[in-house]
Amino acid sequence: MRKTLRIILLTVTIVAGICLVQACKGPKKDAAPFTFEAHPSPYNLSGAQFPRIEADSRVTFRFNAPNAKKVQVSIYNVPYDMVKDSSGVWTYTSEPQDAGYHNYWMIVDSAIMLDPATDAFIGYSHMCNGFEIPDPDGGFYELKDVPHGNVLIKNYFSNITNGWRHVYIYTPPDYETNTTAKYPVLYLQHGGGEDQRVWIEMGRTNLILDNLIAEGRVKPFIVVMETSAAYKPGEAPPAMRQGAPGVARTRTPGAQPVPAAAPPAAQPGQAAPPRLRFSFNTYEEVMINELIPWVDSNFRTLSDQQYRAMAGLSMGSGVTRQITLAHPDKFSYIGIFSGGSIAPADIPENSNFKLVFMSFGSRENGADGLKAAADELNKAGIKSVSYVSPLTAHEWQSWRRSLREFSLLLFRD
Amino acid sequence: MRKTLRIILLTVTIVAGICLVQACKGPKKDAAPFTFEAHPSPYNLSGAQFPRIEADSRVTFRFNAPNAKKVQVSIYNVPYDMVKDSSGVWTYTSEPQDAGYHNYWMIVDSAIMLDPATDAFIGYSHMCNGFEIPDPDGGFYELKDVPHGNVLIKNYFSNITNGWRHVYIYTPPDYETNTTAKYPVLYLQHGGGEDQRVWIEMGRTNLILDNLIAEGRVKPFIVVMETSAAYKPGEAPPAMRQGAPGVARTRTPGAQPVPAAAPPAAQPGQAAPPRLRFSFNTYEEVMINELIPWVDSNFRTLSDQQYRAMAGLSMGSGVTRQITLAHPDKFSYIGIFSGGSIAPADIPENSNFKLVFMSFGSRENGADGLKAAADELNKAGIKSVSYVSPLTAHEWQSWRRSLREFSLLLFRD
Repeated sequence: MRKTLRIILLTVTIVAGICLVQACKGPKKDAAPFTFEAHPSPYNLSGAQFPRIEADSRVTFRFNAPNAKKVQVSIYNVPYDMVKDSSGVWTYTSEPQDAGYHNYWMIVDSAIMLDPATDAFIGYSHMCNGFEIPDPDGGFYELKDVPHGNVLIKNYFSNITNGWRHVYIYTPPDYETNTTAKYPVLYLQHGGGEDQRVWIEMGRTNLILDNLIAEGRVKPFIVVMETSAAYKPGEAPPAMRQGAPGVARTRTPGAQPVPAAAPPAAQPGQAAPPRLRFSFNTYEEVMINELIPWVDSNFRTLSDQQYRAMAGLSMGSGVTRQITLAHPDKFSYIGIFSGGSIAPADIPENSNFKLVFMSFGSRENGADGLKAAADELNKAGIKSVSYVSPLTAHEWQSWRRSLREFSLLLFRD
Repeated sequence: MRKTLRIILLTVTIVAGICLVQACKGPKKDAAPFTFEAHPSPYNLSGAQFPRIEADSRVTFRFNAPNAKKVQVSIYNVPYDMVKDSSGVWTYTSEPQDAGYHNYWMIVDSAIMLDPATDAFIGYSHMCNGFEIPDPDGGFYELKDVPHGNVLIKNYFSNITNGWRHVYIYTPPDYETNTTAKYPVLYLQHGGGEDQRVWIEMGRTNLILDNLIAEGRVKPFIVVMETSAAYKPGEAPPAMRQGAPGVARTRTPGAQPVPAAAPPAAQPGQAAPPRLRFSFNTYEEVMINELIPWVDSNFRTLSDQQYRAMAGLSMGSGVTRQITLAHPDKFSYIGIFSGGSIAPADIPENSNFKLVFMSFGSRENGADGLKAAADELNKAGIKSVSYVSPLTAHEWQSWRRSLREFSLLLFRD
């Protein structure tokens, strides 16, 4: 009964969160003005000048497709028409963009494709390109001359899925030298259509923690990043109706593969696609019975409940909510980034959570009610903190900042 | 005088190697017949069925671009026309492909693009897609239930380039537990238009070594992978003439960025583009004065000459040749994979190399003369081994096998 209620609440919260995100479709007119020198996006391959980040945070794209009839660049899943010059080169200069990382891709004669001149990242259930707008307060995620932890790419075999699982693990700078120390662990979840790579590649988790540790602002801890996509033998992943007509999103038709039943990423200005199912039950089994024991036996962890945290962004908030609330004996800290909120009624009896942290970007509608939700939890005796990231949307800058704010509160006692 | 000679020989060898590679343009009729079940390429995102590897090593591609006039798939840089059905979906089934990893990309109305439904990898100076054909003898690079080493993504600051350098490092399985042991080091170089990622992502260096170590066939060693792209302040990387018309390759026109002066990747069936310059002098400085000292002070290495090896593929062979032959006091083992050969006259006097290993894929014309080149070295008193990878071209399967064969010979005494 209690579990059913939780699932209903979870579903309502997530669907509401996505509807709210859909509402954030206005142009980004109120971006904070600040200037820097124009430069190629840092993800461009050596020598590539485009995308070029202009000095006022506009972005210039350039693409050579002389035979195409129509070329668009899609930024944050909104397509903008490019203009062809007499030599067949298409260009577009955007409005000023918010600080931080943004996904983009090309739409060439209705087909979604990637620009091969700049790096590729997973997002929106397919590979994307990305660019990065400088942030005057972005030093917290920059590579600096401080001691650096390690990012390890590891694999372990799951008997539940009968396959290998791929895990990214951050160990703090002193993990290798302080060889008898044991560390708390944060389990960090990606969003819909993403995987275990994103919290390093776009989230910059390692750099954020290296910098905070160097400043003495957080106690060193390990971070474990794994995908929540997990299927038992016979449970196929949702088939991608790839190459079939009619499955593309309204405003971005073409080759884009849309998993039939996976939770969709935020699509500003569009109605949410139908949601067929939304269960992380197999992943819950994998995480509780295989991942956590594997981490605790292969790394020097503090394995008591009080030293284990879990957080996730967007869909990963749903994963976090489901698993932490079902296993209050295993987790002490809960982080919900851009994924709705938790109400006192969601918290199981006799639980002992030290913190429920909830955040949104200010451009996400959910931001408004967040403080009230935290107040409710605090009134009910469950310590809660809310955070709203200034002038950011359902994107990585919100989540980099959320990770920083959450980390500052972890494992303090 | 000696140095000038070496540079001339180096240039001649590399240009010859590239010309030879150009000659390998015949269809792959003699692929070894062996069957397995049809399956999606392992690099596809969850649920994506295409590219599909057919049971006879053919590959089926499928791409939805209803408004495009012409769509091609380029495999190993050779474009093949796809056919559009009445619903706007383009398909193509290839000839049987050689075992191992192959780069591919889409050409849509003359513009080169990536398929967003499958992973992206660097190659050919731009991002590519890739697929993988099973190899009956491919177990040596598969993920198995054996002890696994770590892949570390590290950064160090270079005063020579005044910037951060990004390094992939493999440490063997017992590195963490056997905390007083010191290890030899192999420095492993990528090819033209690639970077430090490729020896892990396509090369599977970590899995190859994990498996060989588990079988007791190699002595554990550390592998360091860094890009040879290195520029001092004021030395710009070659500008990518991105978006400008007329820079694309003859058979694959479009958006593909071609660095004006970088060494080109193999282009079967095409004349080699003009070669403007070919120097790794800045990287030589970085490697000798910064990278090696940084590795030796941050990892438990055996830092004598006899415990240091260097190898590279294609252009990386040129990097390896230049740096090892100029610093015989630093390196003991030299690996030249698909990059020509070394002659006795190239070896500096009073050097003490333990091994010169040279390899080619059997489909590369350079393969024929390789044994004779090794014989020459052996006759001159320099231990040399040649290896020809059966039924492979200027591609990753040649280099995975070359790494295995080279590793078996490293640090044996």
